[in-house]
Amino acid sequence: MPNDQLSATFAALADPTRRAILKKLTRGQKTVSELAAPFQMTLPAISKHLKVLAKAGLIERSRDAQWRPCRLRAAPLKQASHWIELYREFWEERLDRLDDYLKKLQSKENDRVAGK
Amino acid sequence: MPNDQLSATFAALADPTRRAILKKLTRGQKTVSELAAPFQMTLPAISKHLKVLAKAGLIERSRDAQWRPCRLRAAPLKQASHWIELYREFWEERLDRLDDYLKKLQSKENDRVAGK
Repeated sequence: MPNDQLSATFAALADPTRRAILKKLTRGQKTVSELAAPFQMTLPAISKHLKVLAKAGLIERSRDAQWRPCRLRAAPLKQASHWIELYREFWEERLDRLDDYLKKLQSKENDRVAGK
Repeated sequence: MPNDQLSATFAALADPTRRAILKKLTRGQKTVSELAAPFQMTLPAISKHLKVLAKAGLIERSRDAQWRPCRLRAAPLKQASHWIELYREFWEERLDRLDDYLKKLQSKENDRVAGK
């Protein structure tokens, strides 16, 4: 298992339960029980997911021994976003080709109207 | 292992060799040998990575039995980008706070100059 930050971030995101936990934390800090409630999972199962998220730096657990709420740390997502954005031109390529085609059509129509 | 598209995409990206393969394919289609060359990996090891990328829909292998070049398919990255972008406000939060602080400073300085 590679242990670079970007790999850890993507590995942490590669699970729907972990993504749902992050989404829940966008509405503020939560206890482990609050996070576990909607998933019908045991606390140990949720704790395992929280460990993966914490190791990737995507959540932070308070030191308060009684309550230990989790909160979102989105900083690693910035690097992940930068990596993915380098590929934007490739997923938009088809759209660009369509755009070029429509521009050509428009240009021909303009020439026709201008009597060229 | 969850088998939804977003999880498959993130899992495929959670490895530096696979990310390097995708980067290489941004410069055009390549054979497996061409892809394997810089990694000092065996062809079976590279083939395993290619299978993960193909299963996630991030590469496509030509049907040409002789040569079978791989090419990039960036479409799944669009969905991954959309997911990550929902968190942008959270990783930019600190920067926003700094921005607010600088604006307040500037506003005070403007008031001082205007003799308010």
